[in-house]
Amino acid sequence: MKIEGRNAVLELLKTEKTVDKILMQRGSEKSAGRIFALAREKNIRVQFADGKALDRESETGRHQGVIAYVSEYEYAALDDLLKKGDKSRFVVVCDGVEDVHNLGSILRVAECAGADGVILPKNKSAQVTGAVIRISEGAANHIAVARVPGVNYAIDELKKSGYWVYGLEADGEDIYGSDLSGDIALVVGGENTGLSRLTREKCDKILSLPLKGQVNSLNASVALGIAAYEAVRQRG
Amino acid sequence: MKIEGRNAVLELLKTEKTVDKILMQRGSEKSAGRIFALAREKNIRVQFADGKALDRESETGRHQGVIAYVSEYEYAALDDLLKKGDKSRFVVVCDGVEDVHNLGSILRVAECAGADGVILPKNKSAQVTGAVIRISEGAANHIAVARVPGVNYAIDELKKSGYWVYGLEADGEDIYGSDLSGDIALVVGGENTGLSRLTREKCDKILSLPLKGQVNSLNASVALGIAAYEAVRQRG
Repeated sequence: MKIEGRNAVLELLKTEKTVDKILMQRGSEKSAGRIFALAREKNIRVQFADGKALDRESETGRHQGVIAYVSEYEYAALDDLLKKGDKSRFVVVCDGVEDVHNLGSILRVAECAGADGVILPKNKSAQVTGAVIRISEGAANHIAVARVPGVNYAIDELKKSGYWVYGLEADGEDIYGSDLSGDIALVVGGENTGLSRLTREKCDKILSLPLKGQVNSLNASVALGIAAYEAVRQRG
Repeated sequence: MKIEGRNAVLELLKTEKTVDKILMQRGSEKSAGRIFALAREKNIRVQFADGKALDRESETGRHQGVIAYVSEYEYAALDDLLKKGDKSRFVVVCDGVEDVHNLGSILRVAECAGADGVILPKNKSAQVTGAVIRISEGAANHIAVARVPGVNYAIDELKKSGYWVYGLEADGEDIYGSDLSGDIALVVGGENTGLSRLTREKCDKILSLPLKGQVNSLNASVALGIAAYEAVRQRG
């Protein structure tokens, strides 16, 4: 798999993941100096090429002079993601997020808010590709992502494990009157479809953000950001 | 100017803005029925064409079968935007937001959070184009946007008018310990540069969101969303 873009590659190098090699645009040793230094330090092969060669190799068209080659993205096991530790647990569940930009943004937000991980269904969902990692600014390398046969299966497992499962959508209870302490899962819907009917029914509660204007929805990753940070606030 | 995409055109039709005509893909009268009905009701000419003609006319490449033609975007006067009403005032200031996706998302978030308006500098900033309106899902049609010679001028005017001006950036005070009631302005920086040095100095305070992970920044519109909704929460 290819990881492209300076931030994404830099974040990748901070992890323990195996990087096979880095392709760097000739002349960018200075501007991408930190990447170069870290790669040297970790004994990763850095190969130089001209901009056109990188353009040809690039899958996203926005390599910024750096492409890293790694083994396939390693998903986490659901059990590991739900492991109990010394603090309250917090996971994010994606229900039909098909847009790679949205998934990348969701991973970035979840990582910044300190979530333990993100759960994706295997079907009808974007998966963690190089593009998603780049869009997440490398957050995908730092947060556990587990794949499940379906969202409903995930919700059952979460409930069995003691989580409160909250769907984010319009027409629910005001999030600011809700208790987000304890073990919680926030479920976000797809860009076009929102939460599926069955997901809505299986959630313990549907939580909504107050909309003060005329436009009646927020982008999925923004809505998740607001809800996740309300949890951060309440948890102190 | 062209407004493209179903949501953006629908939101446009709900405003009082003058729409010269709507170009609609043949056969989409049903699926875009609400747009068709509203246009009829408002006596706006609807012209049908095949998909290829819309592709040729489209500036964004994502017209979803509908393109509306309107006069240039009408910016608001700064004075109007800062007018005192019966509730506390709330504006958003963009400092070097050059990416159209970010600006569109910022307008959408600001509108949803009930901000009175958004202030943009005339230089080194994205402006409100058809693409920005589409990305904002039409929010740009419902929120006042004022252009100013520069961000520092805007901050001076805001302070004179009695606003508290808060910059959003790392290394500031924790937003959850800050009072966001009263007349406030939230200043967001550009995607690459953040707040300029002078802007930082002119702000009454720099506010930060706690970052719990390894990735050390949130996307500008997500950070604004979280901060703006903390204001919504505090203002009840």
